[in-house]
Amino acid sequence: MKVHADLCVIPIGAGVSVGEYIAECQKVLDEAGLEHRMHAYGTNIEGEWDEVMAAVKRCHERVHAMGAPRISTSLKLGTRTDREQSLQDKIDSVRSKLDQR
Amino acid sequence: MKVHADLCVIPIGAGVSVGEYIAECQKVLDEAGLEHRMHAYGTNIEGEWDEVMAAVKRCHERVHAMGAPRISTSLKLGTRTDREQSLQDKIDSVRSKLDQR
Amino acid sequence: MKVHADLCVIPIGAGVSVGEYIAECQKVLDEAGLEHRMHAYGTNIEGEWDEVMAAVKRCHERVHAMGAPRISTSLKLGTRTDREQSLQDKIDSVRSKLDQR
Amino acid sequence: MKVHADLCVIPIGAGVSVGEYIAECQKVLDEAGLEHRMHAYGTNIEGEWDEVMAAVKRCHERVHAMGAPRISTSLKLGTRTDREQSLQDKIDSVRSKLDQR
Repeated sequence: MKVHADLCVIPIGAGVSVGEYIAECQKVLDEAGLEHRMHAYGTNIEGEWDEVMAAVKRCHERVHAMGAPRISTSLKLGTRTDREQSLQDKIDSVRSKLDQR
Repeated sequence: MKVHADLCVIPIGAGVSVGEYIAECQKVLDEAGLEHRMHAYGTNIEGEWDEVMAAVKRCHERVHAMGAPRISTSLKLGTRTDREQSLQDKIDSVRSKLDQR
Repeated sequence: MKVHADLCVIPIGAGVSVGEYIAECQKVLDEAGLEHRMHAYGTNIEGEWDEVMAAVKRCHERVHAMGAPRISTSLKLGTRTDREQSLQDKIDSVRSKLDQR
Repeated sequence: MKVHADLCVIPIGAGVSVGEYIAECQKVLDEAGLEHRMHAYGTNIEGEWDEVMAAVKRCHERVHAMGAPRISTSLKLGTRTDREQSLQDKIDSVRSKLDQR
């Protein structure tokens, strides 16, 4: 089962600047070989369900290992059985509707 | 790794009434033997990370099998290394602070 | 426009224990006279859109005033035009489907 | 109060293809003159709290007016008092940490 995910990891009790932790999560996604694209409030990820989920777990493990005592993550998970669609397809679909107006 | 999760499964393209799908997800959580409590906008779940995640995956599989072509799930995931805390502990902690005022 | 909301306020850079901030948000919702019910990963709120949103803003203002330099909130917002439904109706609807099985 | 938001509007009971509704929300954000950037699972928005929230409300009103009987929105809201930061600053901050490694 393919999944489109949006991952936002928030370290708690680790100070006000969390960029170092987010950078580590980007590294985890790279190492996992997953298609991913960071935005200003999370990261879009595309891949097989189990691989995406294994990477999310590694993000928690690494962020704790870096010293954050507590993490609250928001994860969106989109699956569909009617057709295949890439992350870029979703964006293109909305853009084409805007262009048609 | 223990996790506190909050799961909100939204079937898309399956009509306006989604209660039947949510009931199925409750059944999945029961079958998994996971501590869980439904509220009006999701379900709190407590358990080992891998067991919770396996149940979330089964929710997607079952909801698709029931006929929903598309699902968008919001999942919150809380982990901490500083101490153990149950779902009820979190609620009690806030309530005790309200009582102290 | 009536809305069902689920509010989860996360103070960042304010230490690992955030119960004091969450208690303050409960007080804001009380003062606003909004129907609300805390669970272990947020708070269900029911009311007129503008009143709910004004309360969410006050939560951010108060939590900053208490000393949290940064806040990341997750807010779910449910609206419907087909019929009226209370928070409790949503829960009862799923429970009745479970009972029918 | 400035806010960084991430908005994901999900029409329910409006069929499996929701691109037309999302395109309408992009138009609402354009009309509001708000800085915004769509990604594959939502839209980053930056602006004054009240203006961003007014636009989110208009999205719900328009999507209902287009025929969707039910909407479930996920909204992330980030505020900070320690310093000013743009959406692009957040991305640049993580990228610079990745480059330093």
